[in-house]
Formats: sequence, structure tokens, C-alpha cells
Amino acid sequence: MMRTRPLKVALLGCGVVGSEVARIMTTHADDLAARIGAPVELAGVAVRRPDRVRDGIDPSLVTTDATALVKRGDIDVVVEVIGGIEPARSLITTAFEHGASVVSANKALLAQDGAALHAAAEQHDKDLYYEAAVAGAIPLIRPLRESLAGDKVNRVLGIVNGTTNFILDKMDSTGAGYQEALDEATALGYAEADPTADVEGFDAAAKAAILAGIAFHSRVRLDDVYREGMTEVTAADFASAKNMGCTIKLLAICERARDGGSVTARVHPAMIPLSHPLASVRGAYNAVFVESDASGQLMFYGPGAGGAPTASAVLGDLVAVCRNRLSGATGPGESAYAALPVSGMGDVVTRYHISLDVADKPGVLAQVATVFAEHGVSIDTVRQQGNNGEAALVVVTHRASDASLSGTVEALRKLDTVRGVASIMRVEGE
Amino acid sequence: MMRTRPLKVALLGCGVVGSEVARIMTTHADDLAARIGAPVELAGVAVRRPDRVRDGIDPSLVTTDATALVKRGDIDVVVEVIGGIEPARSLITTAFEHGASVVSANKALLAQDGAALHAAAEQHDKDLYYEAAVAGAIPLIRPLRESLAGDKVNRVLGIVNGTTNFILDKMDSTGAGYQEALDEATALGYAEADPTADVEGFDAAAKAAILAGIAFHSRVRLDDVYREGMTEVTAADFASAKNMGCTIKLLAICERARDGGSVTARVHPAMIPLSHPLASVRGAYNAVFVESDASGQLMFYGPGAGGAPTASAVLGDLVAVCRNRLSGATGPGESAYAALPVSGMGDVVTRYHISLDVADKPGVLAQVATVFAEHGVSIDTVRQQGNNGEAALVVVTHRASDASLSGTVEALRKLDTVRGVASIMRVEGE
Ligand SMILES: NC(=O)c1ccc[n+]([C@@H]2O[C@H](COP(=O)([O-])OP(=O)(O)OC[C@H]3O[C@@H](n4cnc5c(N)ncnc54)[C@H](OP(=O)(O)O)[C@@H]3O)[C@@H](O)[C@H]2O)c1
Ligand SMILES: NC(=O)c1ccc[n+]([C@@H]2O[C@H](COP(=O)([O-])OP(=O)(O)OC[C@H]3O[C@@H](n4cnc5c(N)ncnc54)[C@H](OP(=O)(O)O)[C@@H]3O)[C@@H](O)[C@H]2O)c1
Repeated sequence: MMRTRPLKVALLGCGVVGSEVARIMTTHADDLAARIGAPVELAGVAVRRPDRVRDGIDPSLVTTDATALVKRGDIDVVVEVIGGIEPARSLITTAFEHGASVVSANKALLAQDGAALHAAAEQHDKDLYYEAAVAGAIPLIRPLRESLAGDKVNRVLGIVNGTTNFILDKMDSTGAGYQEALDEATALGYAEADPTADVEGFDAAAKAAILAGIAFHSRVRLDDVYREGMTEVTAADFASAKNMGCTIKLLAICERARDGGSVTARVHPAMIPLSHPLASVRGAYNAVFVESDASGQLMFYGPGAGGAPTASAVLGDLVAVCRNRLSGATGPGESAYAALPVSGMGDVVTRYHISLDVADKPGVLAQVATVFAEHGVSIDTVRQQGNNGEAALVVVTHRASDASLSGTVEALRKLDTVRGVASIMRVEGE
Repeated sequence: MMRTRPLKVALLGCGVVGSEVARIMTTHADDLAARIGAPVELAGVAVRRPDRVRDGIDPSLVTTDATALVKRGDIDVVVEVIGGIEPARSLITTAFEHGASVVSANKALLAQDGAALHAAAEQHDKDLYYEAAVAGAIPLIRPLRESLAGDKVNRVLGIVNGTTNFILDKMDSTGAGYQEALDEATALGYAEADPTADVEGFDAAAKAAILAGIAFHSRVRLDDVYREGMTEVTAADFASAKNMGCTIKLLAICERARDGGSVTARVHPAMIPLSHPLASVRGAYNAVFVESDASGQLMFYGPGAGGAPTASAVLGDLVAVCRNRLSGATGPGESAYAALPVSGMGDVVTRYHISLDVADKPGVLAQVATVFAEHGVSIDTVRQQGNNGEAALVVVTHRASDASLSGTVEALRKLDTVRGVASIMRVEGE
């Protein structure tokens, strides 16, 4: 049974993502109506620059007064694709107050203020959906929140930033350095003019916070996520990785501690074995592994960004929210009942690949090995490469806590025979 | 706010999947209650052999009278993990009539009678969920039905049967023949004593019917699915595949015709390039590619069967259905509004790899090429291998309809110089 009165949608932002949302809403209007059970109508479009020509958008719908739009009172769903913290946050809150549900793609905002926004949604008995905020088109939030709702997730490990994956993939396949690969990414439109949010891992950290919160039914904020960018990854690191049968990826890793009593979330470059499915994720694609008690290992793969893919995720949410609206219900809201504390990086347990510049003389290896042993870090392999008095020592450890590793490195730096610590990289995915 | 009156669950079947569902319901009772918003209680377990010892199941809950259990009237959700057509079908219908929603893992039943069961659910305003029916733990039905609800799916291509993938992977990696690989699969518990449903493609065909129906918002029944098993795949086929940089997988393929006016669904062995992500799906794992207008290519990967993984999918559905029940709503039901007709295999367009035994004399290739040309099938490559009067001719075609290819093969068989058609295999994933 089709309802004839349309559901009204306010679109906040009409840029890369918003323009695609508007396009699909128009071109696929009949399909959307059939799937929802009622037509959906674009009731207003808020932008910053009202005079820009926007293909396929009725100019009479365009406004610069986003606040007035969300306050209209006849809006069923607000789609927020402006980005950033303000005015997005206030607009979303105002939308709830004025009776609308919200679909957003805003990872920065969700990672920072997710709990408050969920509380506002719940207070007004409205939906807040944001599948597009993590890994673009890849269904990830819905599977975690709903498909795995009867399982116990222990680990989420993934490539959630396409820009950095493009750069690292370039470095790996061509031997290019970081700057050269970044320049190519910028030229091809894969990196923004200011790439900081991507290459310093802020974008991935926001996604890690969102994923960890949902996976572990706990609150994880952006500040809880350990973050290390990938600007210091060198061609030499890739060479070392190849020696180990590995490549390097910028990973977001959310883990439940073995004792179950806490969780960690982190973003950093890491070596992973070439045999790991994440190693073959090319270009700007994203992929996320989810490990759970009952389901075992699942992987989700696809385009992590781009206007159309991200709009696909937004529209999936829009259909769900509209259906909920018609049935007078709301979907699953925040689930933070487990309230697990988030531990710091010191508690993370993983393996490490450490390159040391050392004096090329007898006894150095013994000295270095003693330092590792004293800090309880057990060595898996050591490789020594010497030439005229200088030598490189490459140590790969067994699993150890980040705190023990840091202690080890600090002590190593104090050894006379250690000239410097050339690189430390975590080894994941084994 | 937690409701204290529990939701009551009737479990029909307590075998490989059912016993895991019961185990997780018990061990994770607190988590389930928190996620649902009310406790869930196992109210009865129907089996065939009541006297079997069942770990962790209160014997007073066990009954052989499944019908009485679903008729009790106080059951909120019936979980059907018996399998087969009857009595599962009648039990599900009776459950709806007596006020329960249903979660099922029964692909055979859903593929055969999905439309009628959905109609019964809708008539009684109840939910019918069956994520576990396709690809075990892998979230696939929910992403297709909900995450991609605003997109236009054009193709679903996947490995949806773990038994056959195990066998084919073995043949590929060890050079073993079909029987030898099957024996190993049976010994290791990956194949059942009677492997017909798996190796003849019936199981995959049921899944293809379910996936096609959801992906294309149309009704696709088991009988609509073209089906070819993998019992005739030989070590020689794998050798040919390797020559082409391919491997062989049993694929389920659901496609929208290019003109959009119809769909096809099929299951058969096919060569796929080693560079395709499906080529590296090992052992009993499943993986499914979904191609849509806006989202592009997505892939979903994980364990396609097994008690615990399948139970994870069942429990995800159970949580969703319980939440719907508490909010007085139902989730998305059948969506068949597009009502696209299902075309037969003749309309499928793909590429082919054909091995012919031919007389080793001049002019044979010209004769063969003429037959292809007369049927409008364009040749990509030909390889000729001759020895003492006998020769093998391997032809790989460009894209052509299955009908043209069949006509070509029929005509080839009539040529005096063609001693036999050793194998015909489709080439996919390019
Ligand atoms: N792009 C992607 O691939 C991608 C992927 C996943 C998630 N996301 C997320 O999606 C959101 C939107 O990203 P985008 O790439 O579409 O951004 P964008 O291209 O920069 O578009 C932003 C839009 O917001 C409008 N806008 C800015 N400030 C505004 C204000 N104060 N009031 C009203 N409108 C305002 C802009 O108006 P004008 O058009 O007048 O400038 C523009 O239409 C962000 O949260 C982003 O993180 C993006
Ligand atoms: N196994 C998997 O990996 C897997 C994966 C995906 C989907 N599935 C689907 O899940 C369903 C169950 O599979 P399964 O492997 O768990 O099967 P199973 O191990 O053979 O268990 C079947 C259960 O149903 C009970 N049963 C049979 N006939 C019955 C009847 N007339 N009344 C009441 N109970 C009856 C059996 O009782 P007894 O215990 O007394 O024999 C047994 O407990 C099937 O639809 C299957 O296709 C299975």
C-alpha cells in the first residue's frame, strides 16, 4: 500500500556527496517510493553559495538559511552532508527538536559528539543514521549494529582511508617516496589540497572511534584513539617490509582486551603479511575485517569514498529512516551498555619491526638482546647488515605490550653502541 | 529502559545450527537482553529424537511436537532450523497464524516458497528474517535489502557454497581429480555423506534465487535458476584454466539484463582470472561481489557455513525481530514491486572456453572458425596442440549469448573433423 503524501527531505550541503544524493533522489524517485512505501520529496537544499549552478536542482529549493530549513516543522528527514563540527552539530540537534530524523555522513562530528547526538535523537524519539560516515559505500555500521547484534565482536581491523591507501599502494608498487606519491594522489584528485586529515590519520581515527563504539557497545571518542600518521613511512620501510613478506598499510584497529575488561582503538601504519587479504587492497579502496566469537572472520570491501558511493550509503539510510517513520518506530539507537573503558596505547599487545643503526663491532647484538630481555620483549628474528664500522640491526619481536616496547626502545637509545633507532613499525594481521 | 517480561523463543531443530543458537542464547543472555531491551527466554525446543543428550538444554523444554510448540500462543519468535520443505513450511505458517515472527536458515524452503511465506508474514503483520539462509555468517541479505535500498544493483556474483569451494580449491592446489578431492572433503566433514545438494549446485541455486529476488526487487524461484553442478570439472580443466591465468570456481551469478527489462540467475562452474578477488577465496569460505550503479563494487567475505557462524546470523536476525516486536513494528518484508521477468540461460551473455578434439590436418581451424562466425560468436584466442593425427583446439570467445554458443557447439559436433567437444566452460569476472 503506497501512501501518497510524500515524506519531505531537507538536504544540508550539496557538494561532492550532497549533489549525488539529490541526483539519485530525482532519477530513482519511483524505485525509492516503491521501496519506502511513500514518495520522498526534496523539500529544501541548504548551501553556502546560493548562486552556483547546480544541475538538476530546482533553484527555488536552494537556501543559505539551513537553520530555517530544519526548523520548518514539516521535514521528515534531514540529510546532513555539510561536514565539520559547526554548524552541522547545531543543525542536527535543531532538526531533532523540530521533529525530523537525521541521516549524516559526518565522521568528524559523530566521533566527537556521537553520544550527545544519539541522546538528542532518543530524547525526541527520532533516528540518527550514519552508514556513510565510515568507509563510504561499504555496509559496515549496519552489519556491526544489526547483523552481528547476537555475536561478540573482538576485533575490527581495516583500511578506512582511501587517500592514504592510494599513497601507500603507490609507494609499494613503484618504490616512490612519500612526497612523490602524495603529489600524484593530489594531481589525480585522491588527496585534498590540505591532506592533513588523511595523512595524519585524523580521518581514520574518527572512523575507528565510531567503529569501536558500535562493535564493543561502549563509548569511544576521538580522543580515546591512539593516532599516528603515515607521513614518515619511507621507501626503506617498504624495502624492509618486502624482506619480511609484508607490505605497509595505514590501519584502524579496534580490539577487545584478552581479559574482556577493556578495549583499545588505534590508527597507525603497520606491516601486514602479503598473504593477508588486506594486503591486496589497492588504490583508494577500503576494506575492513571483523572478527567475532561465533561468526569468525568477516571482510567487507569496496569504495571508501567518492560522491556516488557515499550517496549510496546515505540513501540506504534514508530509505530505512523513512520506513521507520511510516511504521512509527525508530531503528536501533546508541548501544553503549557495556561501558567498557578504553585503555591507552601502552596496553596494546602486538609485534614490532625495529631497525637500529649500530656500531659494527662484536658484542653489539648481545647488548641489544639483553635490553629486549630485560624489558620482557621476546625476539622472533634478528638480521644484521654490516659495512665499514656501521651496521643495521633489524629486530622483529614476538607479541609484547606497547609499554614494554617503548621501555625497550628508550633503553636502546641509551646504549653507546646504538647510533639511532631508524624506524619502529608494528606488525599486524597474523 | 529494560522490559522485564521476557520475549519467548521457540527453537525448531537443535542440530548443527540449532544447538549453537541455544548455546549462545544461554551464554550471552545478558548481552542479548541489553541489546534487545528485554530478556529473551528459550521457551521450547522441538527435535526428532527427544532422548538424545543435548548439552546445556533443559530437558523439560524438549518436545517432538513442534506443531504444538508453535501453536502455544505465547511464543514471540520461532527460530526454524530444521531444514527441508516439510514440516518446516507448515510450522512457519502456523507460527504466523499464532502470533509469532519467524527467523529461518532454510534456503531450500525460501527459494521454493519465499513469496508465499512472505505473504503469510505480511498477512499476520509479522517478520520473516533469514540472513543465515545465504552464505552463513556473512551479512548479505540485510546489506542488499537495507544498505543498498537506495541503489540499483546490477549484478551479484559469488561463491556461496563452501563444500564445492573446498573441493575446487583442493583440485586447484594439489592437481587432484574431483573424486579424490570430494573424498577428502567428506573425510574432513566439509561434505555430507550424500553430497548431491552441494556438488550438483542445488544449494547454490537456492541461494541464487534468494539473492536475485532481493537484489532485483522481483520474484525469482528456484526453478528460474539455471543450474550446472561441478562433478564434471576435471584436472585437465584446471590445467586449461592455469594456461589462461585463471582458476575454476562454482559461481552463483544474478544479473540484470543490459536493457534493464529482465534478470537472469545461474549457477555453474566458471573460469575466473587469478587477479579477481574471488579467485583467492580458499577452502570452505564464501565471498560475494555486489555491483551497483552508485556504490560500485562491494565484496562480502566470510565463513559460509558451520554451526557457530550460521548461529551468529540467526541471532542477528533474532535481535532485530525482537526489537521490532518491542517497538510494535515490522522490518522490511518482501520487495517484489519491480516484477522483472526472469530470462532463460539462452539470453545470458558471457565468454566461453571450449576444448575440442579435432583431426590434426590442415583446414580444421578454418572450418571451426567458420562455424563460430556463422553463429555470430567472435573468437578471442585459439590455441592448437597436435600429436599424431589427433589434436586439441582450445578456443576462447568474446562475449556472446548462451544461445549462440549452444548453436555453435551443436554445429561443431556435426563437423567430420571434430572428434568431440572435450569441455565447455564459461569465463567470468572480467
Ligand atoms: N566526499 C567523500 O567522498 C565523502 C565520503 C564519506 C563521507 N563524506 C562526508 O560527507 C560530508 C560532505 O562531504 P563532501 O565531500 O560532499 O563536502 P563538500 O563537497 O565540501 O560539500 C559541502 C557542502 O556543504 C555546503 N555548506 C558548507 N557550509 C555550509 C553552511 N554553513 N550552511 C549550509 N551549507 C554549507 C557547501 O555549500 P557550497 O556548495 O555552496 O559550497 C557544500 O554544498 C562530510 O561530512 C564528509 O566527511 C564525504
Ligand atoms: N549446517 C550449516 O552449516 C548450515 C549453514 C547455513 C544454513 N543451514 C540451514 O540450517 C538448517 C538446519 O541445518 P543443520 O545443519 O542444523 O541441520 P541438522 O544438524 O540436520 O539439524 C536438524 C534439526 O532438526 C530436527 N528435526 C528434524 N526433523 C524434525 C521434525 N520433523 N520436527 C522437529 N525437529 C526436527 C533434528 O532433530 P534431531 O536432533 O532429533 O535429529 C535436528 O535437531 C537447514 O535449513 C540448513 O540448510 C545450515
